[in-house]
Amino acid sequence: MDLSCPLPEDPADCITLGHGGGGRLSQRLLEEIFLPAFGTMGPEHALDAFTVGATSGKMAFSTDSHVVHPLFFPGGDIGKLAVCGTVNDLAMSGARPRWLSVGFILEEGLPMETLRKVVDSMAATAKAAGVSIVAGDTKVVERGKADGLYLTTAGIGTVAREVELVPGRITPGDTVIVSGDIGRHGMAIMAQREGLAFDAPLVSDCAPLHEAVQGLLDARVPVRCLRDCTRGGLATVLVELARQSGRCLHLEEAAVPVTETVRAACELLGIDPLYVANEGCFVAVVANEMASEALDRLRDAGFPEATRIGEVASEGDGAGRLFLQNAFGIRRPLDLISGEQLPRIC
Amino acid sequence: MDLSCPLPEDPADCITLGHGGGGRLSQRLLEEIFLPAFGTMGPEHALDAFTVGATSGKMAFSTDSHVVHPLFFPGGDIGKLAVCGTVNDLAMSGARPRWLSVGFILEEGLPMETLRKVVDSMAATAKAAGVSIVAGDTKVVERGKADGLYLTTAGIGTVAREVELVPGRITPGDTVIVSGDIGRHGMAIMAQREGLAFDAPLVSDCAPLHEAVQGLLDARVPVRCLRDCTRGGLATVLVELARQSGRCLHLEEAAVPVTETVRAACELLGIDPLYVANEGCFVAVVANEMASEALDRLRDAGFPEATRIGEVASEGDGAGRLFLQNAFGIRRPLDLISGEQLPRIC
Repeated sequence: MDLSCPLPEDPADCITLGHGGGGRLSQRLLEEIFLPAFGTMGPEHALDAFTVGATSGKMAFSTDSHVVHPLFFPGGDIGKLAVCGTVNDLAMSGARPRWLSVGFILEEGLPMETLRKVVDSMAATAKAAGVSIVAGDTKVVERGKADGLYLTTAGIGTVAREVELVPGRITPGDTVIVSGDIGRHGMAIMAQREGLAFDAPLVSDCAPLHEAVQGLLDARVPVRCLRDCTRGGLATVLVELARQSGRCLHLEEAAVPVTETVRAACELLGIDPLYVANEGCFVAVVANEMASEALDRLRDAGFPEATRIGEVASEGDGAGRLFLQNAFGIRRPLDLISGEQLPRIC
Repeated sequence: MDLSCPLPEDPADCITLGHGGGGRLSQRLLEEIFLPAFGTMGPEHALDAFTVGATSGKMAFSTDSHVVHPLFFPGGDIGKLAVCGTVNDLAMSGARPRWLSVGFILEEGLPMETLRKVVDSMAATAKAAGVSIVAGDTKVVERGKADGLYLTTAGIGTVAREVELVPGRITPGDTVIVSGDIGRHGMAIMAQREGLAFDAPLVSDCAPLHEAVQGLLDARVPVRCLRDCTRGGLATVLVELARQSGRCLHLEEAAVPVTETVRAACELLGIDPLYVANEGCFVAVVANEMASEALDRLRDAGFPEATRIGEVASEGDGAGRLFLQNAFGIRRPLDLISGEQLPRIC
């Protein structure tokens, strides 16, 4: 299955090294593609830095690079992924995502039409998420030196609350919630790459998560810590939370929502869905007495699959570790995966 | 001349796809390379976003991607370049650079030693510039899909002053100053790539510029606008300033400082030094009556070559354009360059 983009007939419709030179072609790229899409770069676009209006209080700052292959996949594309990735990282710290920057590394020969589609997707995703793309940069590398394009987004969010959402706040007896069914993003990419078809289509869950988080915070659910289940999947996030908090986490395998299609794809490829990347799914560790309220708020926010999947053990053995209880009642420790089962999925 | 890095004998000393997987290898990369260098990522390193302490007032936000080839060159490397690039963009807006993020796109097979050298260089440059590298991300692409590594930095600076440094403030009669001799960065890269040697070595001017800017602002020099002369060089910056301000700028060619070595290299390669990238050189447009004071402050700040190179014409003809007066007294308009004379220099 050839996933490369066909080269247009007219080389004028392609990215050339000149587009990275800072001269007339760079100017045209800015005026014809970036500015119409990211209107918010506004008249300041040609300045070296964007000035964020007066703010007070704490800010959150985050970055993510994106090298997903192929660039377009069911449920999203590299542009949507790059915006959601940084929006979600900010949201997980309890911040309201506000401003994004984007660095484009473009491959010579990239069809202008492909760039335009990615940029339009970024703009639409940013608009839907209520963030502004205010700063950018473009570099061009020779043919073969990037797979079409790589994107790096960085973002700033404003933090209204006093309490930080950090693993150190995780408390024995807390409940572990996942916002939705897992494994869809990674398996959608893999299925597309391998040319696999299933009865039900595999569609990435790629989506911004900040409104769901805001729903929890507005409802005054005592959220200890949030983490989106991207690279490494749900299991990796929980292993890290256990380590960083020094607490013992229990995960009940049978409670973890996985669609039939994802399960079938994972079986076919010999992949554990617990370690598959998601791009629109997060874990919340909340005080047990408010867990039902948290699930209600998540369902209200459009996450009908939100489920209780585990708990934080009382103090004692297993500090800093994650244990999985499988469907047969057998309990085993889970750890970080040592290699890379799904390269280039984000 | 082979500029690629030799592969180490032991594949354990190389970047593998697993280092981008978010699992154990990613964790090791963080613990063994990034954290020891960027100590400021501190205990928060594994969180999705870094929380910037309480601030008030305006902030500047900027980003730059870096694909320079080769990775190491006389006077710097891709790491130093990436830190200086974003520090300088922030400084040009009159901000005090404070926090940086960095996205690494690594090529499978990159020697760990090379990564370590780049990371150490970033850390040293950040320390010298008084900025903290507080957020990061790493992705790995297959062999051949990047030239060792690409870096994207983003940065936040705090803006203390009320007046924005924008082209709209440029006024007829203002003086145009350049902070130093031009063309060194681009020609140092080209000479290394082409294997050219000169009597005097060609060394990049790559350096942070924020202290020089702070010196001007502290001395209450009425600075209208600042711009670092990176891609496209001095001429491109001045063409853009003329356009954006709607003023007519005059540049006196004979006044522009260029070293003998840069001049010789440019002649040999048929390149106009006015369009060659710099990484430690900027233009300041200042009120004429304070131009001497500005030059004194720049020389105090370690820029002995700071020179008056032009002026803003009185209102009338030539609005929005840049004119060059050459050594023979001939005046001609300069425009943006149409292609790319020096690819991959930053």
